Amino acid sequence: MISPELLSISRGDTPADLLITNAQVVNVFSRTVERTSVAIHAATGRIAGLGEYTRGVRTIDLKGAFLAPGFIDAHMHVESTMLPPSEFVTLALPHGTTAAVFDPHEIANVLGLAGIRYIMDDARDLPFNSLFALSSCVPASHLETSGARLEAADLAPLFDDPRVVALAEMMNFPGALNADPPILAKIELGLLRHVVDGHAPGLRGNRLNAYIAAGITSDHECTTRAEAEEKLRRGQHIYIREGSAARNLDALLPAVTESNAHRFSFCTDDRHPADLRDEGHIDHVVRRAIRAGLDPCTAIAMASLHTALHYRRPDLGAVAPGFCADFIVFDDLGLPTPRQTFFRGTLVAENGKLAPAPARSTARRSTPPASAVRFHSSLSESSFRIPSRGGAHLRVIGMHPDQLVTDSLTVPANPVNGEHRADPARDILKLAVLERHRGTGNIGLGFVKGFRLTRGAIASTVGHDSHNLTTVGTSDRDMLAAARALAQCGGGQCAVLDGHVLALLPLPIAGLMSDRPAETVIAQQRSLLEATRSLGCPHADPFMPLSFLPLPVIPRLKLTDKGLVDVERFDFVPLEA
Amino acid sequence: MISPELLSISRGDTPADLLITNAQVVNVFSRTVERTSVAIHAATGRIAGLGEYTRGVRTIDLKGAFLAPGFIDAHMHVESTMLPPSEFVTLALPHGTTAAVFDPHEIANVLGLAGIRYIMDDARDLPFNSLFALSSCVPASHLETSGARLEAADLAPLFDDPRVVALAEMMNFPGALNADPPILAKIELGLLRHVVDGHAPGLRGNRLNAYIAAGITSDHECTTRAEAEEKLRRGQHIYIREGSAARNLDALLPAVTESNAHRFSFCTDDRHPADLRDEGHIDHVVRRAIRAGLDPCTAIAMASLHTALHYRRPDLGAVAPGFCADFIVFDDLGLPTPRQTFFRGTLVAENGKLAPAPARSTARRSTPPASAVRFHSSLSESSFRIPSRGGAHLRVIGMHPDQLVTDSLTVPANPVNGEHRADPARDILKLAVLERHRGTGNIGLGFVKGFRLTRGAIASTVGHDSHNLTTVGTSDRDMLAAARALAQCGGGQCAVLDGHVLALLPLPIAGLMSDRPAETVIAQQRSLLEATRSLGCPHADPFMPLSFLPLPVIPRLKLTDKGLVDVERFDFVPLEA
Repeated sequence: MISPELLSISRGDTPADLLITNAQVVNVFSRTVERTSVAIHAATGRIAGLGEYTRGVRTIDLKGAFLAPGFIDAHMHVESTMLPPSEFVTLALPHGTTAAVFDPHEIANVLGLAGIRYIMDDARDLPFNSLFALSSCVPASHLETSGARLEAADLAPLFDDPRVVALAEMMNFPGALNADPPILAKIELGLLRHVVDGHAPGLRGNRLNAYIAAGITSDHECTTRAEAEEKLRRGQHIYIREGSAARNLDALLPAVTESNAHRFSFCTDDRHPADLRDEGHIDHVVRRAIRAGLDPCTAIAMASLHTALHYRRPDLGAVAPGFCADFIVFDDLGLPTPRQTFFRGTLVAENGKLAPAPARSTARRSTPPASAVRFHSSLSESSFRIPSRGGAHLRVIGMHPDQLVTDSLTVPANPVNGEHRADPARDILKLAVLERHRGTGNIGLGFVKGFRLTRGAIASTVGHDSHNLTTVGTSDRDMLAAARALAQCGGGQCAVLDGHVLALLPLPIAGLMSDRPAETVIAQQRSLLEATRSLGCPHADPFMPLSFLPLPVIPRLKLTDKGLVDVERFDFVPLEA
Repeated sequence: MISPELLSISRGDTPADLLITNAQVVNVFSRTVERTSVAIHAATGRIAGLGEYTRGVRTIDLKGAFLAPGFIDAHMHVESTMLPPSEFVTLALPHGTTAAVFDPHEIANVLGLAGIRYIMDDARDLPFNSLFALSSCVPASHLETSGARLEAADLAPLFDDPRVVALAEMMNFPGALNADPPILAKIELGLLRHVVDGHAPGLRGNRLNAYIAAGITSDHECTTRAEAEEKLRRGQHIYIREGSAARNLDALLPAVTESNAHRFSFCTDDRHPADLRDEGHIDHVVRRAIRAGLDPCTAIAMASLHTALHYRRPDLGAVAPGFCADFIVFDDLGLPTPRQTFFRGTLVAENGKLAPAPARSTARRSTPPASAVRFHSSLSESSFRIPSRGGAHLRVIGMHPDQLVTDSLTVPANPVNGEHRADPARDILKLAVLERHRGTGNIGLGFVKGFRLTRGAIASTVGHDSHNLTTVGTSDRDMLAAARALAQCGGGQCAVLDGHVLALLPLPIAGLMSDRPAETVIAQQRSLLEATRSLGCPHADPFMPLSFLPLPVIPRLKLTDKGLVDVERFDFVPLEA
């Protein structure tokens, strides 16, 4: 409904509810700055106009400070922040993010539709534009046991929610480009009213053509300038990803030109809570892009309008008549650090903190789903035992602390009493993936090199994409203790020594997210990482690579609850070589 | 439905149905040229891919010629070509136009929904993307008698047609920005699933803010660079209009930059058939823009992708995987003159002519509506009589042959036998507007200066926007004869001398369009203009300004069937001053 009151303010016949004067507005259409006033209508939370306005019920004189549209994250999994949306926004709003396209892919793999519905419910009535891309690939592969399976028919009813803007990243790119019928059914569903997001790392040439011809119009997996340029030339909108795990900004920025910048957006994909708080969110990406030489107005347009246009949300992403009054105030165009964030014309964050009342009062928590960590009753220390079959060598996963890709190593076997054991002296630790959704008792066992634990064990119920419980350790006893500790708290991450929990980060919401305030989660995570270091592991965040060890779609050697997977063969391989 | 066969061609597993090699493809995403092959799937008429393809059932070696997406006219009234869509495309396709957004505003004013339905029906199954913007302002004002009145409820069912992309130009900008409820109802209807096109010549500042805040996101009425820049900054997509009547390219091109070009498109609005054939269509605009200094790839992108994106048609406007295989071939990037036009991968025009069979065979004519020229039975020579009321002066419309704006002149009255007569010696001719839709007998009478007829009369049933019959002449007898001649043939344009028709261009379809081939219409029009010149009128096309004399929304003095209108007062004024 168009508001006659809004138009009356636009015309200047009625005073603005909020008048902002002396603003240097970043105009994302012209990609220039204009000094002007901005008139806002409170009841709709919309911008009535820019220009010659002098009357406001309330007036804020910006004294030449900059005003720009709030930032939009084009693609993120809120689960990576370990916070549900209602808590995530407490970190995001102070950094100027006023909209994000959430793909609830992680919780969907654990809880299916109930998980997606929980996230969508939790995101209601926040001072934030929660947009949704519906998860297209649950489960990610047939080589693991997930908590759910979602087909087109399952997703269809969700598309009626007006917050849905896309079918989320089509990670099964072989399925898409080979015209696998259930995959095409999902894409067709997405294309009925929306866009379909892509996920095709390194896909080039004719296979890329097929993937795009299937209707997939974006990509956030580019890692080289040439890849981004090719995908752009073939019609894809490129989301430059700069998150906590994958960081592609430096590589991709040279692909952006004045004439093609409208085909680029920013996203974080996965962002950890401490990074979010300390470095920032999309504002951090914008600052990095500007420091790397991108025109500030262009960077801001990529962080706002370009994303809104791609997702066909004509009410978001600009400071212009009729647009939602979601904007930020900052002092230095060369280093946009939001001093204030407004949502629908109301101040919601200031100087790095949430504004006191109105914003938070609208937030409400939905009931988190019940615990989602369930093991078979037979689980015991002996479940972790790996009897030798007499092979002379073992296949060992070679983990790199900052990469998702692993090596496939072969090391001499050294069985003790007929079993293969962890050998911390050689940094060969035992790895186990315990199916946690259905109580099947599935347990995948193997070895990993790279964590450098000298004692104890660590474990996590965050394990892409099925999120089974993954534990790495020096002894079966501590691995069991770690698994049991997480089962008890409904999931999370922990460090264990001699059967005792040293530190625990509970993630009771699907084993992925906390129900505590962000500050608590960040503190718990810091304690956990300190405890892990006390076990001998020198890495800044070993839980990041740990969480990707079960993902059988990223090379080369991975472990699921069903066994060891050679990703290049996309099949299981025996432990002994 | 996504076609597995299409994807198989994309992958290179199946030969392309049509393989185009050695093409210099104008890439409208990167706005660069790339030399490559293009693989096409016949059954869907889609592009399978660009790149390394070598196998084609049929192959065309372009030997380095350029290949670009077919052109899109962002806004046009096909009625101005005097041809229904099925005949219009015979002129447009050889000029590389493969899509147009038709606003059937003229026929809607004559026949209402039946008129719109006729145009939409006639446009079916053509080798052309006929898109529709539904006419928002029928009638244009309350100061005239139109053939129909369309409210939101009337338009609503038409929005179900998948070819509809917009609510057409909201000419009632005072109604929109003042929040007139029936106007807002139409806009809201348009915004449900589409965009709403604007029409607000000269609107600036706060009133422009209100107009845009109402949801109107484009404009094609800019005449100055500053106006275009302001509308762009406020969020509007700018269609640069270069038609037969209004030509704004030279004035607006300086507003286009590398970074904002994606906010610009081209349109013709009104294009006469001879201009269409001889100068061209959007190709003519592209050539003019390039000659004026615009980068050729940018000009082509403005003539294709940018328009498709604005109207949310992700299948049109680019040579890219999954897009409709609608493209042109030409030899000189500096002067793109389509040598071949392809629609859905089939050659439909070549060397300025339609390709022989397949394209035309799909075209079919729908039955034109019945005659739409009806006068009251009392119409006679005396209907044109203007008795003097004793005033010393007459208000006279001052016509300029190349403008839509008129002057409001005051000349001494010189009554003869108690009546005001035409006075060719002073170039003061009689003007009459006869209501032709309902047989009311309404006749507006006045005087006009500028046509310079020395004898006879001319008449037209094209008279914006209500399209009543408009005649200007030296004698009541010839004006009556001209009106009767047009009534007899169901409408059109004619020149009359001494009661005899010198030349006649019949427009039996609503009094606006011919049912003859384009070449016949062009020849008839030329004869008519020659006959008009023989009556003393020196202007190249006096029917153009004649057709705008009844339009009471363009300044300053106009005449409708209800009387003389002072446009600035937006009310009637007496003839005698």
